[in-house]
Amino acid sequence: MALFGRRKKKDEAPVEEPPAPTLPPAPPVDAAGLRSMEDHRAYLLEQVEQLPAFGQLLLDALDLSICEDIESDVDLPGFDNAAMDGYAVHAEDTAGAAEDSPTTLAVVGEIAAGDWSEEPLPPGTAVKIMTGAPVPPGADAVVPYEQTDRGSEDVVITAAVRPGQHIRRRGEDVSEGDLMMRTGERIGPRHIGLLAAIGVDKVMVRPRPRVVVLATGSELAEPGLPLRNPAQLYDSNSYLLAAAARAEGAQVFRVGSVGDDAEAIRQTISDQLVRADLIITTGGVSQGDYDLVKSVMPELGLTDFCQVAMQPGKPQGFGLIGEDRVPMIMLPGNPVSAYVSFEAFVRPVIRKLMGLEPLFRPPVRAIATHLIRSTPGRKQFARGLVTTDPGGRRSVTAVGGHGSHLVSNMARSNALIVLDPDVDVVPAGSPVEVWLLDEPS
Amino acid sequence: MALFGRRKKKDEAPVEEPPAPTLPPAPPVDAAGLRSMEDHRAYLLEQVEQLPAFGQLLLDALDLSICEDIESDVDLPGFDNAAMDGYAVHAEDTAGAAEDSPTTLAVVGEIAAGDWSEEPLPPGTAVKIMTGAPVPPGADAVVPYEQTDRGSEDVVITAAVRPGQHIRRRGEDVSEGDLMMRTGERIGPRHIGLLAAIGVDKVMVRPRPRVVVLATGSELAEPGLPLRNPAQLYDSNSYLLAAAARAEGAQVFRVGSVGDDAEAIRQTISDQLVRADLIITTGGVSQGDYDLVKSVMPELGLTDFCQVAMQPGKPQGFGLIGEDRVPMIMLPGNPVSAYVSFEAFVRPVIRKLMGLEPLFRPPVRAIATHLIRSTPGRKQFARGLVTTDPGGRRSVTAVGGHGSHLVSNMARSNALIVLDPDVDVVPAGSPVEVWLLDEPS
Repeated sequence: MALFGRRKKKDEAPVEEPPAPTLPPAPPVDAAGLRSMEDHRAYLLEQVEQLPAFGQLLLDALDLSICEDIESDVDLPGFDNAAMDGYAVHAEDTAGAAEDSPTTLAVVGEIAAGDWSEEPLPPGTAVKIMTGAPVPPGADAVVPYEQTDRGSEDVVITAAVRPGQHIRRRGEDVSEGDLMMRTGERIGPRHIGLLAAIGVDKVMVRPRPRVVVLATGSELAEPGLPLRNPAQLYDSNSYLLAAAARAEGAQVFRVGSVGDDAEAIRQTISDQLVRADLIITTGGVSQGDYDLVKSVMPELGLTDFCQVAMQPGKPQGFGLIGEDRVPMIMLPGNPVSAYVSFEAFVRPVIRKLMGLEPLFRPPVRAIATHLIRSTPGRKQFARGLVTTDPGGRRSVTAVGGHGSHLVSNMARSNALIVLDPDVDVVPAGSPVEVWLLDEPS
Repeated sequence: MALFGRRKKKDEAPVEEPPAPTLPPAPPVDAAGLRSMEDHRAYLLEQVEQLPAFGQLLLDALDLSICEDIESDVDLPGFDNAAMDGYAVHAEDTAGAAEDSPTTLAVVGEIAAGDWSEEPLPPGTAVKIMTGAPVPPGADAVVPYEQTDRGSEDVVITAAVRPGQHIRRRGEDVSEGDLMMRTGERIGPRHIGLLAAIGVDKVMVRPRPRVVVLATGSELAEPGLPLRNPAQLYDSNSYLLAAAARAEGAQVFRVGSVGDDAEAIRQTISDQLVRADLIITTGGVSQGDYDLVKSVMPELGLTDFCQVAMQPGKPQGFGLIGEDRVPMIMLPGNPVSAYVSFEAFVRPVIRKLMGLEPLFRPPVRAIATHLIRSTPGRKQFARGLVTTDPGGRRSVTAVGGHGSHLVSNMARSNALIVLDPDVDVVPAGSPVEVWLLDEPS
């Protein structure tokens, strides 16, 4: 026993390291080691939260998702008012009036829209009234100009009116307490009109997500600049995905492209974290020796790289990056693969961030105009051109080949033809599922 | 005869005043003095020019109309390249290779995406190659990793490849000279991807029109502020129309509301001319004593006030205002009338300014779920809710009453039910024309 042996103090319990954070357990894979498209999509969505709501001026809330139920605290109209320009009267004073037996009433004044008076209208008199102006107490009908001589001192009335005629009743459009909008609805122009009408100038909404887009690959050149050598190609992915994300309502920062250089990738991603609600990259997630995104990103956060049972779009990556665990979706580098992956995974994530429902494009059916072949075991996304006849019946024709580098076919398409993994052929004339790419939802 | 009578000099010809500018002859009216909706729309469109084209950065051209035919000046792909990671070979060197009789080739190097060399591949050798990297001269196929031992010095190949296999041929997507986009097409995300891919970074487009929106009426109060008296109501029109114009792609300046005061209206409109490609007002165009827009605007430009055979939306005004003849559309003041008029007249004008086709919403058919009545002699626009079954068959139900002040019904609708002037009743189960309000086109 050591003479001066140091004893551990009882209250100095060993410091327990907090468990290293990890992603949730990954979804199962099939016999070929592939994850289903639906499982991967659900896995991403479960790890992404809706952005926090904030107050926005009404007009700037267009197209955003409202985060509060809005009840009206006013009636619309707010008061009984004239539906036409004319004369407010006691209806009974016009009884029997007709072209050949007109009634004459004394005109006691004039009420314009915006005028307010509590003065009751004496029986046997009329008051000139403009459309939208408040009907005075006692008056219960409006005689339109067309059924009068438009008199100023007295007015000659040539038709009888019923009680309530040509009057818009207080509250007949909206009653105080009526629900105007419900949490989760997307605010369109007509909602903005309604909210303004009940006096609302600000609403709680989820903001437009800040989406950073960059492409990776040493072969990429910036459009508008000359190629540095004949093996280069122009970066189209970052443009394509930036535009697609913007079309979904995101606020997009296109960073452009970064070469196959671990330090450059690390640095660029780290720099972008501060302004990103979501980072999208393309390239570098496959099996190749230069697939650096896949090798670098695990240093910067929690990552998941997998193969998805879909074509195109098999190699996929996801991460929660940096201290703030910013979601990052790492897509394959072929333009068509990147775009199909955007539709399958990124668009639903953007919609979840924005609080928009439905998260997915509603699958619709179209009749195949020709035989379509698929690769069994993979969910197939072919580019298609959908036409709709006046009755709403849709037909679809595949556009060009399966090659995931064929960007001109993609530009000519307006839909994805979606074939489940168990389908190998669709005969001409059969219905197929399509995603309509340019429809709002 | 006067002694000193002054004689006109022969060379002093009388100065001829240039003819006062006028609007083109107005369209005809029917027996009731009403102009048809279609005639009025055509009359407005004939007086509005497309905005001049300007060069815009590619990503900012999203949703705009392109004003040039774009031909590719490159091939896509720009060079023969590997469709998979593997080894570029002379296909004939793999003849007979199989799992049980592999072929071994010497590996002479490695080609990454973006590398360029004119060095031909010697027969009997292989070069490691990454997806997208240029296939060297002489090589005519790629053996994917999966059919090799991934060797570095030598590679063992276990399957034969055909000439051309796993190679993407130069120009197979796009050939130099191919037409990529045609004047007048609207630029969507996939077009942006295609244009970037061929190296385009700027395009000629028509800009977003600057649209000034204001409402008139002394009864109007600004949402968010208290009403000054119980006869006031909140200005919803300027919000509704600003949002609707923005949803169509315009750059919108909502001026808010101005009271029924001739000088204020004159001054506000004059002030806005400098930043407007189009001015939209609501209110003040009917027959009432306070309809000041109608009385003031002729002082500021060329104007046309008329009654259109439609319901709602009968009173309409148009003008070319100020020295620059800025188009101005003066809509009625009831919110539903204003919105229907926006759809009928303003939206087509905005689309013409932007160079977008088609100018009008494509009329589609829906089956009426119940009997719908109309007012003969007027084109009827009822608010409707269209539902679509998975096969694309549409049904429509009218939402609420005809009152042009009913903004809550309008907010719940997604379509206008459009009934021609000669229709007085549509039986349940019959097809009717609808305009789908939230569809892009």
